[in-house]
Amino acid sequence: MEFSSKLLENAVNAMSQLPGVGKRTALRLVLHLLRQPQEQTLQLSKALSTMRSDIQFCKSCNNISDLNICEICSNPNRDESIICVVEDVRDVMAIENTSSFKGLYHVLGGKISPMDGIGPSELCIDPLVEKVKQGHVKELIFALSSTMEGDTTNFYIYKQIQDYNIFTSTIARGISVGDEIEYADEITLGRSIVNRIPFEISLKA
Amino acid sequence: MEFSSKLLENAVNAMSQLPGVGKRTALRLVLHLLRQPQEQTLQLSKALSTMRSDIQFCKSCNNISDLNICEICSNPNRDESIICVVEDVRDVMAIENTSSFKGLYHVLGGKISPMDGIGPSELCIDPLVEKVKQGHVKELIFALSSTMEGDTTNFYIYKQIQDYNIFTSTIARGISVGDEIEYADEITLGRSIVNRIPFEISLKA
Ligand SMILES: [Zn+2]
Ligand SMILES: [Zn+2]
Repeated sequence: MEFSSKLLENAVNAMSQLPGVGKRTALRLVLHLLRQPQEQTLQLSKALSTMRSDIQFCKSCNNISDLNICEICSNPNRDESIICVVEDVRDVMAIENTSSFKGLYHVLGGKISPMDGIGPSELCIDPLVEKVKQGHVKELIFALSSTMEGDTTNFYIYKQIQDYNIFTSTIARGISVGDEIEYADEITLGRSIVNRIPFEISLKA
Repeated sequence: MEFSSKLLENAVNAMSQLPGVGKRTALRLVLHLLRQPQEQTLQLSKALSTMRSDIQFCKSCNNISDLNICEICSNPNRDESIICVVEDVRDVMAIENTSSFKGLYHVLGGKISPMDGIGPSELCIDPLVEKVKQGHVKELIFALSSTMEGDTTNFYIYKQIQDYNIFTSTIARGISVGDEIEYADEITLGRSIVNRIPFEISLKA
């Protein structure tokens, strides 16, 4: 691409480093900003740089936070004996959205993935093990996506904490509520049969 | 969406004002920036704000430029008697890329589109008419997309300049080079027959 302006080129190049944003899309986005009031671009620019410079990670659960200790961890009504282990802040948001969990979270910041050069030391695992060692935790719920990487990560953490007397669980996998059985993928369908639950319990859900 | 951080929320909201970027995509992009070195976000932030604050539009052709008069307009080797009228900088880039045009451009900044509230006064049309009146221009090439809006815009400009003795043309529409005739859309195919050219001329192209 030959640009008529270095300023335009720089902006397009910077934008196109975002995942899934090619040069053409970046150009379209930048031209859009040029047609909007200057204020919009300055706001975007400011929001990004302030976010990146000032954002904090909760010292306790590693979730993104504006405080040293996040609002969930510092909420006295949450049950600190149950910790739900998740990959990133999006999972926290999704689970919080269901209002079905009143324990605390622990955000790993990713999954173990040797292919991508992500080993246990790249993730926030040690502080979780440390928390378990301190003895206040009764249950860990693994809520990682059920991929090879997710399973590896679960297992790695499990090995670290298995000698401490706590209960570990993983979230249930099954057919989505409202989904047709005939269209379900076979792995999920298989798991949902193996892990079937007493009908009386399902009536209460 | 409930965010655990106001800084995160602000960044996501600002990003999601870009066209085609929903809240979920914005969150994905912002989380990506958080995983990259701080420098990348600061560069992006700077590139956008500098671009928006400092960018100029060529006083002659209205193309995006870092100078008062763009490099094309100030190039003595370009033929200033032929002006190619385009919608935006992307069209200039596309046509320059073909190396088939040695005249100048005039960038309208959009097309007349009453549905979107864009009338002639929102576009850079008057300076073009002014240029024609001054008498140095021999030909205007309309290179707008062939939509209702493009045709309306062409016709509006044509009416303004028809009393001045210049030649007006539009770029040829036809079957793309390499395309199968049988798969061409019928309007394009129809136009390509109506506007057929002498075979001897096609041999020289
Ligand atoms: Zn926390
Ligand atoms: Zn120019």
